[in-house]
Order: sequence, then structure tokens, then C-alpha cells
Amino acid sequence: MTLQGTSIIGFGRGEIGGATFTAFDPSTGEAVGPEFHSASVAELEKACDLAAAARLAFGNLPGKDRAQFLRRIADNIEGLGDTLLERASLETGLPTARFAGERGRTCFQLRMFADLIEQGDWVDARLDSPDPERQPVPKPDVRSMLRPIGAVAVFCASNFPLAYSVAGGDTASALAAGCPVIVNAHFAHPGTAELVGTAVSDAARECGLPEGVFSLIFSTGYEIGQALVRNPNIKAVGFTGSRAGGRALMDIAAARPEPIAVYAEMSSVNPIFILPSAMRETHASIAAGLHVSVTTGAGQFCTKPGIVVIPEIAETIPFKAQFGHLIQQTAPHPLLTSGIRNNYERLSAGRELEKIESSGEVCGYGVGPSVFETDAATFLSNESLADEIFGPTTLLVESSEREELLEIARTMEGQLTASIHGTPEDLIENADLIAILETKVGRLIFNGYPTGVEVGPAIVHGGPYPATSDSRTSAVGTRAIERFCRYVCYQNFPNASLPEELKDENPLGITRMIDGVRK
Amino acid sequence: MTLQGTSIIGFGRGEIGGATFTAFDPSTGEAVGPEFHSASVAELEKACDLAAAARLAFGNLPGKDRAQFLRRIADNIEGLGDTLLERASLETGLPTARFAGERGRTCFQLRMFADLIEQGDWVDARLDSPDPERQPVPKPDVRSMLRPIGAVAVFCASNFPLAYSVAGGDTASALAAGCPVIVNAHFAHPGTAELVGTAVSDAARECGLPEGVFSLIFSTGYEIGQALVRNPNIKAVGFTGSRAGGRALMDIAAARPEPIAVYAEMSSVNPIFILPSAMRETHASIAAGLHVSVTTGAGQFCTKPGIVVIPEIAETIPFKAQFGHLIQQTAPHPLLTSGIRNNYERLSAGRELEKIESSGEVCGYGVGPSVFETDAATFLSNESLADEIFGPTTLLVESSEREELLEIARTMEGQLTASIHGTPEDLIENADLIAILETKVGRLIFNGYPTGVEVGPAIVHGGPYPATSDSRTSAVGTRAIERFCRYVCYQNFPNASLPEELKDENPLGITRMIDGVRK
Repeated sequence: MTLQGTSIIGFGRGEIGGATFTAFDPSTGEAVGPEFHSASVAELEKACDLAAAARLAFGNLPGKDRAQFLRRIADNIEGLGDTLLERASLETGLPTARFAGERGRTCFQLRMFADLIEQGDWVDARLDSPDPERQPVPKPDVRSMLRPIGAVAVFCASNFPLAYSVAGGDTASALAAGCPVIVNAHFAHPGTAELVGTAVSDAARECGLPEGVFSLIFSTGYEIGQALVRNPNIKAVGFTGSRAGGRALMDIAAARPEPIAVYAEMSSVNPIFILPSAMRETHASIAAGLHVSVTTGAGQFCTKPGIVVIPEIAETIPFKAQFGHLIQQTAPHPLLTSGIRNNYERLSAGRELEKIESSGEVCGYGVGPSVFETDAATFLSNESLADEIFGPTTLLVESSEREELLEIARTMEGQLTASIHGTPEDLIENADLIAILETKVGRLIFNGYPTGVEVGPAIVHGGPYPATSDSRTSAVGTRAIERFCRYVCYQNFPNASLPEELKDENPLGITRMIDGVRK
Repeated sequence: MTLQGTSIIGFGRGEIGGATFTAFDPSTGEAVGPEFHSASVAELEKACDLAAAARLAFGNLPGKDRAQFLRRIADNIEGLGDTLLERASLETGLPTARFAGERGRTCFQLRMFADLIEQGDWVDARLDSPDPERQPVPKPDVRSMLRPIGAVAVFCASNFPLAYSVAGGDTASALAAGCPVIVNAHFAHPGTAELVGTAVSDAARECGLPEGVFSLIFSTGYEIGQALVRNPNIKAVGFTGSRAGGRALMDIAAARPEPIAVYAEMSSVNPIFILPSAMRETHASIAAGLHVSVTTGAGQFCTKPGIVVIPEIAETIPFKAQFGHLIQQTAPHPLLTSGIRNNYERLSAGRELEKIESSGEVCGYGVGPSVFETDAATFLSNESLADEIFGPTTLLVESSEREELLEIARTMEGQLTASIHGTPEDLIENADLIAILETKVGRLIFNGYPTGVEVGPAIVHGGPYPATSDSRTSAVGTRAIERFCRYVCYQNFPNASLPEELKDENPLGITRMIDGVRK
């Protein structure tokens, strides 16, 4: 497939003209073709109008029809074969094997949501029976369920060109809910975006869906992306990226005449607390496990552990030696963009702390992994040390004071995750620490590492601000569909005009809550 | 019980001093004692600090213990007897019989949430089983459930001094979720607030709860209420009131360093569409039913129908005559505050339309009910006609053009409700109208009126902006508890350190989702 470099507006393509940009090969820092053409405001508005026009027809499709669409998208992505893996690798500096895995996750997510909406229970259908004899007034027949919220804008993640980009988790969950999606491609991997965008657009056509259920916008700068969030036909936003970028979109959405929900997944240092018993008994395996978690994918995961609280005991000395040695031995690796590389270097240079770093040769957007070290008093008196540095670095904070541990937890901003290494007895003894962490994070992990987010019904990938913009939801797993829905209630409606999910005869055979009891 | 006129800060009382205000008797416009003393910023901060300190202990209580607290609140409110009904009547100009009913609803809500949290299913507990043999990496044990979001600020509603004020739906659902609550009293009914606030505070003490699970703030002007929303210990806001007031709180919450969720229930005209068949067959009963819906409680309900779309057919003439006659015959009634009365008169005076109004004598904050009339073309070309006028007035919009009906629906802002009067066949023929309305409202009603919101598991009291600030939720019924929660996930946690709801042995015997299936 030849890349055209133009936006996908419904079933058509954007014009050539206006600002252009290219991808870069992070391993060399050199531009790679073709040229991509930024969408115009008029093209963006056309995509939004098409999405609004498609909203009712798409939102009212039976779940099984939308499921077919999601499965077709997955099939089409797989049909791109090595072309997709090679382009993603070229644009990111990450190996094709990584993208074979990420493609697997992407297609798994699409099929997971397909299964969910085909089965149908997810709509939380509720029926409260009428009672015409009730005094002083008759009790009405009240039924309700989740319905799609309207067209959704999705901003691609730099660090997940497949699983959180054009047909990633946000898009899959929004389409599953019945919402048309307009994707804003990430400038770092436009070729990957066009390949996947074509797979989605083709699937929409092959499934006979209305034009406008999907568009893909290329842009340079922020103007077009911001106009997308301001467009009155857009009813929710999905974003994965920096804290500054996410907050900017939150502020724009909140200032609209009609404010809308923003699901931004932004910034997290994912603290790990290593308790003395764990350090004593398993410091070698923790050093090895932590090294993998910090450096995999060049540390460019939202769940990378950026702060590790370690006890001041004898075994911490070999732990630090081993971890430092592993970091030193790890070859430098290109980061995704020059901006990410520059931030990594600037923020690292600002840390006047003891540091061990990789000594290998750097090329392109490459940086060496590193580990910083400090004590709790220094950490607690220097707020910026709690900030995320995106990339393969972490900060060891040494402390054996119980009150310091609690203070580190208490003063922490919202996080996606926190991890505790210790014995089951330690957890019970540290119930106060766990209770504080529960209020700060979306996911608590025992004797493990935060990277490698499991995708399923129970997972929570979320957390209080600034980890996300909306702590009430999850960006990963089946719960992600709820983000793009709202409840709609039908009072005394004739059976024939109710949605299938609410009809007397329950034609879909789904589990429903009848008078407060799930059946 | 003698009213003290001071805020309730945890288990203590606010100081005398600073700005003071009194309630007014709307039927005379005269001040009634005692004086109420505005809380100071320091008192407000103390209430927020106490709430933050109580957060962990209260949020980690078993559901049955919080249920006991909610039931004790209901018992204490009932224990206030006629004192409460008489004070509420004095401060609002509404009859004591109305408050006997509203007290019933308030206590019903408290006990409904008590039953919900005692039973325990509501937490949406999910368990995904581990698989240590899975390749390429073992599958972890992942469990999650809803947990309280933190301290909540509740702003009392002018029009529901009991059911949406100090111990109303927002407070009941937040306490049920495990969130401490700080209530900002409404200046129009401070005595009612103090009585109910004392009932809540006494219940907290009687149940041995930590100080700070509840505080009640009196204030004049906006400064203290805004400081409450800005306080970093506040994690969510519940509000019922005007569009301007709700939007101001939304904007403050969105501009915080850590933005928080605002559940504001603001503005709705609750359109009713009367189709020709209904007008032909039942115009007499519709005129009577509509009259009750428009004038009950002096029209001061968020679900009062403010726009009624009627067909241009012969039977519309006797309908209008009968409805106009009923309006003319209805005695003027005081509104809740001079501000509401002034807005009613100003907005009514701005409508240069045909008008029929009550001719009775007006006293205090009284106004006469009225009905305006116009045609669809005028309505569609004059945006302000779609705005809410809070009080006993409605606007009849005559149209027989199908496209006009659809255009009225399409251009409508978000609403709490829309109602359709017709035959079941009409609904099928007007599926396009229903499909548009579904995207605009929280509740669709067939052959009924929007006032009188049923309280139960299936109800949805919500809707797109400006009906509410967050269309994804419901302010009424058991779903309201979800507003004050977020999901928390536990990965590979030892059984002993899991919340009861997630333990292997399911000690609470609740329904849980195991590997995607509810059991």
C-alpha cells in the first residue's frame, strides 16, 4: 500500500496543500517520506459534520452489527502484515517484534469489545415495575440503559502507535459504545496512522456503515487539534500524552459553551515501595525486575516506575550495586521524538543528585538509561523530584523512617499505580500506608511491577489528577466503554418503541436489573 | 429546639460574628428570626480539614455501619416532627403538607441508600483469575471495585429544602459512598438547614463516627461557597440551582490545580410534544394534567414543562381555552425568594407574545401563573424563547409541520426530560423524533408529565448540558451513588489485605463479576 499523506475524511481523502510535515527515524534523526498534509479547518469541520450525521444511525445499530465492524477492523489491521510492523518500527525506533506484540493487543482489544457488545449485558439495563394502584400516585414503568454520548475525538499516543492510537483502546471503546470517532494522528507516526486509518475506513465501508463513523486528521501544531475539541459536534475526548497537553485540552473542553468530558491519561511516576523484608530476601530479583520495568520500550510507558522507595538496610547496598550495574550495561536507545529526548535530557540535567548512567554510544534521538539516588528528606523538600521524567530513568529514595514513608505517600499527586514489595504480613502491618495509597492511585500492585497492563474486565487504568483527568473511569479493559455513554430513561413507553435491551420479552437474553435485582 | 444561627463545624459550632442574614417569609416578604452568622474562611477550612481527616476511617467502614448512620439520620429527621415542617413552610411559603411529603421522600432516599450499601452489590466488584502458566507472561490476579472519591461539597437547592438540601439526595448518596460531606446551606431556608443539620450531626455522634464526616456552612454572598469548591480537600461537588450558579462552580472546579467533578443540576424546559391523535382524543385531560404539572409548587420544579408543542388542529382550540381558563383561575402564589420572583417577572415581561395570566391578588413574593403562546417559526427564530423561566409559566408552540417538530428537537439544548403524548402507533411513526430526543434528554416520558420524579434503581435524573454539568450520571435513584466513587484495582494482593468485597471467600455474599461473568 502506498501512503498518500492525506487525512481520511469520512470515505474521502483530504486535499493536498497547506502545511506539510514528515515522520523522522529516531535512530538517525532523519526525515522519512512521504510528506503528510495538514487538514484544513474546513476539512476538520466536514469530518465533524459527517460524524454528527452518522451519530443516530450508528448509535442505534444492534450491538452485533457494531461487533462485526470491530472484528473487521482487527482483520484488516492483521491484513496489513509486515508493512505495518515495519513502518511503525521505522517511525519509532522500536523493534518490529514490539509491534507484533502491540498489534496483538490492539486486535485483542477490538475483539474484546466486539464480544462485550455482542453479548450485551454491559448496557446496565434496569427495569422498575409499575404499580397503578400505588397511593397517593401510581408508580410509573421506568426503564433505563447506557446509550452513546455522541461523536468522540481521539488523540493518538506517541508511545502506543497501535494500541492507543488510531484503532487503539479509546477508539475501540468509543466505536463499541456507538460513538463516531475522529482521530487526530500523532505527528511522530503518521504513516502508521494512515495504514491503520485505511484499515478502519475500509472496514466501515465493507460493513455498510454510514460515512462519518470514522475520520483521521493529520495536522501540524496545535490549531487543528484544539479546533477539534472545540467543535460543537464533539461530545467527548480521549487523549494520551503529556500533562501540559492533556491539561490544555481539559481547559479548552471546560471553556466550551457546552463543556464536555475529557479522558486524558497524562502523568504518573508509579511509585514502588520496597519494604525491608523484601529487600532482605529478594533484592537480587527485585533489581532485575525493576531494571526490566524501567528500561523496556526505552522507559516510554505511562506505568514506568519513576520513584522507588528503598529501606536503609545492609541488603540495600548490593541491591543498588546490582541495579546500577544493570543500568550501566544497558545500551542507549532512541526516544520517540526529539521533543521527548530534549525533555528527558533537560529534566535529567536539572537533578543535582547522585547518578549512574549507561555509558554506551548515543545516536539519533538516543539517550542512556540512568538511575538517580537521594534520601527521603531531600525528596520531601524538593517538589520537582516527584515529577515524571518520560524515558528510561528512575529515582531511588532511601528511607527507613515509617513516618517518612507515610509522608511520601500523603504528599504524592495522583498516580496510575503504586506497588509494594514485602510479605503478606508487611501489608497488614502497613495497612495505614495502603489506605493512603488507595486514595492516590487506580491500581495497587503487590510484589510486582506496574508496566505490562493486563487487559480485562477487572483492570483499572486510571487514577486521580494528574495521572488522568477523570479518576472515575478506566482507559483499559471493558470498563473503558462506560466513558463514552450516558444513561437514558424511558417512562411508560410502549414495548414496541423501547430499545431491544429494555423490551418485556428481553429478546437479547441479557442480564438486567429488575426492581433492583440483577436477573 | 432553639435555632442558634451558627454553622456546624464537625461536632462544634461556628462563631458568632461576621456577616449575618435572616430568612424571609415569602408570603409577606418580611424577615423572620433568628439571625444567621456566616462562617469565616477559617471555619470553612477547619470543616474541610476535619473532613479530610475523617476520610479514611469513614470510607473504610463496612457498608452496614454507614447504613446505620443513614437510617439514624432519617430517624432523627422524623424526630424533629412538626417543628421541621412548620419552619420549612415559614421559609418557603409552601404548605406543611408539601413538606410532610418531601420529608417522606428524603427519609425514603436515606433508607434506600442504607439498603443499597448494606446489601453491597453496588460496588461492581470484579475478579479476573490469574494464570501463572500463560505465555509469554503469567496472567496476574486482578480485582477491582468502587471506592469513595473523598470529601464532597453539597450546595442546597432553593426548591427542595429537604429532599435536595442538607440531608437530600446528594448528601445521602455521598455519605453512602463513604465520602464526608460539607453542606453549603441555602440562604432562603437556613432554619430548615440548621434543624436537619443538627439531625445529621447528632446521628454521626450517636453512631460513633469521626468528627468531620459532616459539616454545615452558613454564608452570605458567594465567597465562602466558592472557597469551598476551591479547597484542595474537596474532591467532588453536588449542586442544584440556576444555570449561572452551576456554571460558575463548574468553571471554578475546572480551573483548580487539581480539577474535580461537579454534578450541577441546572436548567431545563422539559418540552412536551402533543401529537395530533392525543390532542383529538384526550385534550381535556391533557389540559388538566398539564395545568397541575405547570403550577404545582408554584412551578418551582426542575422538571416543570416550560415548552409545549401543540398541533394546529380543530381540537387545539378547546384545549387552549380550557388550559388558559385553568391558569386564569389559579391563585397567585409566593415564589421562594425575591430573586426568583424578580427573574420570573423580568423574563416574563421580555416575552412579547400572546399571554393569559392569573388575575388574583399578589402579596409578598407572589406571582400569578401564566401561559404564553406562539408559532413554531417565531419560536425557532428567537433563541431566548427556549430559555427556562423558573416558576408557574409555560409556552405553547403551535406547529403542524413535521419538519418543524424535528427542527425544534434538533435545536434544543440538553434537557432533563422530554414527553410525547400520542398513540403507540404515533411513537413508531415518529421514531425519528424519538431518536433525536434520546440524544437531548435523560428521560423520555410517554403520555405523562415530567414533574414527580420516581426514586428507584432505574430512574435517570440527568441530561446533557445545561440540564446538568455531567450527562453521564443520575442525581436521583440508586445510580446517584456512582457519582462519588472511582474504581480501585488490586493486583496480586494477598487475600487478607483485600477489601471484604474482593476476598476469595466473598464474606459479604455479594454478586461479583468473575472473569467477565456476573455470579
